[in-house]
Amino acid sequence: MAPKKGLLQRLDEGPVIVRQLHREFLRAGSDVMQAFTFYASDDKLSNRGNESSKKYTCRGINDAACRLAREVAEEGDGLVAGGLSQTPTYLSGLGKENTQKEFKKQVDVFVENKVDFLIVEYFEHVEEIEWAIEVSVKTGMPVVASMCIGPKGDLHGVPAGECAVRMAKAGAHVVGINCHFDPFMTLEGLRLMKAALDAAGVKVHLIAQPLALHTPDAHKQGFIDLPEFPFGLEPRICTRWDMHKYAREAYDLGVRYIGGCCGFEAYHIRAVAEELATERGRKPKASEKHDMWAGGLKMHTKPWVRARASKEYWQSLKPSSGRPFCSSMSQPDKWGVTAGDSTLKQKTAITTDEEIAELAKPRRVMNGK
Amino acid sequence: MAPKKGLLQRLDEGPVIVRQLHREFLRAGSDVMQAFTFYASDDKLSNRGNESSKKYTCRGINDAACRLAREVAEEGDGLVAGGLSQTPTYLSGLGKENTQKEFKKQVDVFVENKVDFLIVEYFEHVEEIEWAIEVSVKTGMPVVASMCIGPKGDLHGVPAGECAVRMAKAGAHVVGINCHFDPFMTLEGLRLMKAALDAAGVKVHLIAQPLALHTPDAHKQGFIDLPEFPFGLEPRICTRWDMHKYAREAYDLGVRYIGGCCGFEAYHIRAVAEELATERGRKPKASEKHDMWAGGLKMHTKPWVRARASKEYWQSLKPSSGRPFCSSMSQPDKWGVTAGDSTLKQKTAITTDEEIAELAKPRRVMNGK
Amino acid sequence: MAPKKGLLQRLDEGPVIVRQLHREFLRAGSDVMQAFTFYASDDKLSNRGNESSKKYTCRGINDAACRLAREVAEEGDGLVAGGLSQTPTYLSGLGKENTQKEFKKQVDVFVENKVDFLIVEYFEHVEEIEWAIEVSVKTGMPVVASMCIGPKGDLHGVPAGECAVRMAKAGAHVVGINCHFDPFMTLEGLRLMKAALDAAGVKVHLIAQPLALHTPDAHKQGFIDLPEFPFGLEPRICTRWDMHKYAREAYDLGVRYIGGCCGFEAYHIRAVAEELATERGRKPKASEKHDMWAGGLKMHTKPWVRARASKEYWQSLKPSSGRPFCSSMSQPDKWGVTAGDSTLKQKTAITTDEEIAELAKPRRVMNGK
Amino acid sequence: MAPKKGLLQRLDEGPVIVRQLHREFLRAGSDVMQAFTFYASDDKLSNRGNESSKKYTCRGINDAACRLAREVAEEGDGLVAGGLSQTPTYLSGLGKENTQKEFKKQVDVFVENKVDFLIVEYFEHVEEIEWAIEVSVKTGMPVVASMCIGPKGDLHGVPAGECAVRMAKAGAHVVGINCHFDPFMTLEGLRLMKAALDAAGVKVHLIAQPLALHTPDAHKQGFIDLPEFPFGLEPRICTRWDMHKYAREAYDLGVRYIGGCCGFEAYHIRAVAEELATERGRKPKASEKHDMWAGGLKMHTKPWVRARASKEYWQSLKPSSGRPFCSSMSQPDKWGVTAGDSTLKQKTAITTDEEIAELAKPRRVMNGK
Repeated sequence: MAPKKGLLQRLDEGPVIVRQLHREFLRAGSDVMQAFTFYASDDKLSNRGNESSKKYTCRGINDAACRLAREVAEEGDGLVAGGLSQTPTYLSGLGKENTQKEFKKQVDVFVENKVDFLIVEYFEHVEEIEWAIEVSVKTGMPVVASMCIGPKGDLHGVPAGECAVRMAKAGAHVVGINCHFDPFMTLEGLRLMKAALDAAGVKVHLIAQPLALHTPDAHKQGFIDLPEFPFGLEPRICTRWDMHKYAREAYDLGVRYIGGCCGFEAYHIRAVAEELATERGRKPKASEKHDMWAGGLKMHTKPWVRARASKEYWQSLKPSSGRPFCSSMSQPDKWGVTAGDSTLKQKTAITTDEEIAELAKPRRVMNGK
Repeated sequence: MAPKKGLLQRLDEGPVIVRQLHREFLRAGSDVMQAFTFYASDDKLSNRGNESSKKYTCRGINDAACRLAREVAEEGDGLVAGGLSQTPTYLSGLGKENTQKEFKKQVDVFVENKVDFLIVEYFEHVEEIEWAIEVSVKTGMPVVASMCIGPKGDLHGVPAGECAVRMAKAGAHVVGINCHFDPFMTLEGLRLMKAALDAAGVKVHLIAQPLALHTPDAHKQGFIDLPEFPFGLEPRICTRWDMHKYAREAYDLGVRYIGGCCGFEAYHIRAVAEELATERGRKPKASEKHDMWAGGLKMHTKPWVRARASKEYWQSLKPSSGRPFCSSMSQPDKWGVTAGDSTLKQKTAITTDEEIAELAKPRRVMNGK
Repeated sequence: MAPKKGLLQRLDEGPVIVRQLHREFLRAGSDVMQAFTFYASDDKLSNRGNESSKKYTCRGINDAACRLAREVAEEGDGLVAGGLSQTPTYLSGLGKENTQKEFKKQVDVFVENKVDFLIVEYFEHVEEIEWAIEVSVKTGMPVVASMCIGPKGDLHGVPAGECAVRMAKAGAHVVGINCHFDPFMTLEGLRLMKAALDAAGVKVHLIAQPLALHTPDAHKQGFIDLPEFPFGLEPRICTRWDMHKYAREAYDLGVRYIGGCCGFEAYHIRAVAEELATERGRKPKASEKHDMWAGGLKMHTKPWVRARASKEYWQSLKPSSGRPFCSSMSQPDKWGVTAGDSTLKQKTAITTDEEIAELAKPRRVMNGK
Repeated sequence: MAPKKGLLQRLDEGPVIVRQLHREFLRAGSDVMQAFTFYASDDKLSNRGNESSKKYTCRGINDAACRLAREVAEEGDGLVAGGLSQTPTYLSGLGKENTQKEFKKQVDVFVENKVDFLIVEYFEHVEEIEWAIEVSVKTGMPVVASMCIGPKGDLHGVPAGECAVRMAKAGAHVVGINCHFDPFMTLEGLRLMKAALDAAGVKVHLIAQPLALHTPDAHKQGFIDLPEFPFGLEPRICTRWDMHKYAREAYDLGVRYIGGCCGFEAYHIRAVAEELATERGRKPKASEKHDMWAGGLKMHTKPWVRARASKEYWQSLKPSSGRPFCSSMSQPDKWGVTAGDSTLKQKTAITTDEEIAELAKPRRVMNGK
């Protein structure tokens, strides 16, 4: 299981909080400390007014991230992974050589830091992930590759099954899906991947790192397109019981790298680890002061709350939103814009307020119809 | 503003994590570090199979909590508050003398630790909070008192307005409501309190510390009675935009102690502090790397996400749950059981599985109807 | 029980269809054929571009309606009632004398037609219904009076209980509530009426004629203010099981004139009559080829549909809307405009498109916030 | 456009009401009076305790239905169609010869009555409809064939496209889909049919006769499997605006027989006819006293209701259910049982209460999980 990649809701910063976040996931049962290297490529750091490039370099961030992950991993029995993800260079249509140069800079730091393996993830285009895998396998390290796609495939329209086979043929040892969709849509995509891999006679392991958010209404680019992204997603957050279900279904499907992406808190990973306690031969450290299946409620003051201290109760609960003025599904704003589209191209200046007003127009028209 | 009281979703433990949690709220804009002393009375520690009493005493826990809060408060300009809450002794009908003995033990530790003021909160019965205020005011420290009641009043049926007047007359300097209901129902209750205080000519300040959860379907004992309590509440979690709205309405109503209770994460408090930045004369530390009203989205790759970088967008968003098989409101399980009821009485043994099965029966019958 | 007043969904016209509609309700169990005289006063017929006044008079419409109702009533054991309702004259602030003149014109026709009793209903202001009752009682016929108010009272703010007492004191033999709110909100209002009548020592019977629509989100002027009114109300339509529940609760509360208003189809009235079959000593004619509580499903081809042939199944069903992009509650557009307000005044010209555009503006602003 | 087939909500009976129902649809714009011959085959009349066979024969019912339809058709410019549908004989696995015998008996009556064409509809298995078409084409009359399938195909798993081609090759002049799914899922299926017909180079017209109910949560056997079927479907009823949208999309797809099935009221068909008024060169008779796009609201008393007198308003409305305790989607009970399954076989005795209790068990288990 891999740690959560986002830090959105933690307001402190610096080494202390990064370590603490790794530690919480380690205690929750994570086997892997994934270094916080997401989108930390030089081209991304200088995109659209991001001022980070003035203070930080790809090298500096990736190096610090690897060291912090290793420190915490050594507190337990954790592995450290360095991660690559998609680049503005590719989206801008600047070609294979330029794109791989960006990957190489990150990979070099991972090699120097002797991470245990590489994660190549959050790619919307199978072509780009093939290029990233190509760079990664040259290190001789194990390579885990996953795309942020749903059951329908990548943004160029390549089906999920074909993506899986291409990732495996490019050299990845573990292939699968991360981000963009909820646990159950992710498993739907993995089912297609598994079938295609079996049909092609390719033997690799599978990885699932879904959102901890319900997204039945998401299409091509997943939760990015939902109107709630990224600051109104709370009502979609999965419960721990959703995670028990996800872990069991993933395991039964044959997935052996079972983790999480945006929205995962440590308690979600703990639920995954608890569901699979028998299979893993142990409970996570964080389960020590915590009874499985809400057993702790046996101590609650109110008798009707004590009555909820059962697996049956929580498994069958359909939780309400408390929001009667909100619908249960949303209409995605837009989807399907692929690499090379002018609106996706690298641009150093930040978007102006005038441009924002212009961008917001189509939505108003659409909603008016 | 006060820090969150719960630690439910943090899986680490010990002094490091307690300090870190205080620190996040301090950075988010909290003026008060409320020591983690909730329900840390000796009678509670030995109730219904809670084994804490074997390792920990009221004195030990409260003392450690005060010291940790003070350490972090000194990193900024924070105040430290010690807190009292309702007791099994009262619920068991053991009378004023016994109940006040429990309060006294906690208050003594607060005095020794020289906290800046006392919070007397989470009381369901106005009679018990009067007893707690009585013990607290003897210390000479400022006393903030709040009940976990909705607009309808306390569990004995005493209206919210009357509760406010009684708390004030018992000596509290700030009175109000905490926990059990969402921000907007809490403000509804405070409106009644304000009217009653004005009518009675009593001058005190007001405090609001609501849930960060939507609970329009909750009745007397609030979210405790909702079937989702406490492990399926995710879809009810407030967004930061809900908190902007709450902070503004609370301020306009005249509330000057604006905080939060269960469900509040640091980013919720940051939203409160940002909404009131002008009134407070400063933004919170945690706003440094963060643009107000989703301004940071101007840097997002996808143009339709950049279009969401506006106050208007997020203020009018009605976020979907992504859960089409769940309803928006729930039927509370039960409510209105008051002090003295046999099912609420102190009991050292944990509830057995047989007793749980027995307790679960009425629900099945009710649902079958 | 009274017949439905609206003909919205029947597209044929003329005596044949009016007779047929009465007949369906008679077969469904209605004891009363309420003549189709709603809003058929001369001032209403010439309001806001209504061209009916060029072809039809109050006298002509009311006379034809009484005769058709009587024809069908004589096919069974039905009673015939003539009905008065609120007037543009009152809303325009033209005073008691003018308003009563309008009532008198309708009442005269009812007297000539020897209807069995009078229904004075759909009044939003207690003052106006008092004037209508005053005119009605002079005929010597029994007078049934009901207002379209919710538990909060009439548009002038007079509480429901006081309205009941005033209607009774004005001479009505049966008092209650019709239209504007759903069956359960209507019964809530009737509970208040009953309490006030008891307290005042006034002995009259009660009438309930609610909508067959769920309106928990409606305020002062009820479903009129909901954005779905009047052409998007389908998802709110009550099931026959809602009507069983309504009939039982109304009966238990002591209501003895149990009918329905907008949205009631004959099958809803049949459900009311079937629920009370024992109390009434008979089933409605329309139950002859129909088994109670979905018993007919025992003949269904699919076994899982046969499994639904039970009272328990339908009583506990919470029917889904099949509309995941819609919320369960709406924000009313506006409410509380009372008699005399300039926007309510009589006006012979139809509203122009420009005026409509102007009227639509506030909504757009409100939704934008 | 075809009339509604169900009479569920009309409580009167006999020739008068049958004629009246035809008449309402004629006025609403229907070109076709479809005789009420649904399921009126001898085997169906004696299935599972249906006592109709003691009083009525296939011959008697079909003959009366044809005559009544013709009477009303002659009041306007209507066509008369006789209809065949699937048989218990086929579901019981009794083979082609026996099944066609049942069809032949109905077809003979249609020929004698000189109906204008035949509708072969409501078939869940393409094999059976081929047999029905075979019998029908022998009459020399035009044959319209439609199956109750969704985009996924028939119950044997034959895709929608293949079903269309097979119906056309069996001799049908118009092919398509009726019942079981909502308008938009039906059009999704028709898109697949059109593509397959084009690919196969087969030239036939298309027919759509969907439900007037929203069923996004329905699978194989459509709304039959939804827990709300058939007595709790109200919240799913389409608005007239849904029908405008449906009519336009159907027309744009090239569908030229645009009608409706269960749930369609005359006003739904009127909306279809009004949307296509230009294409058809006329408005329906029933539009005479009715303004398009809610124009009649310009005469409403309340100004905020007058503001709703616009096409834009109703096109963008997302109507609420007023049911906050209900979800927006349901879990279908079961689906996919096909011809020959023992639970579907013909059986003259009615299901007993014991058998119902037995059938209801799996649901309770399922819900408990």
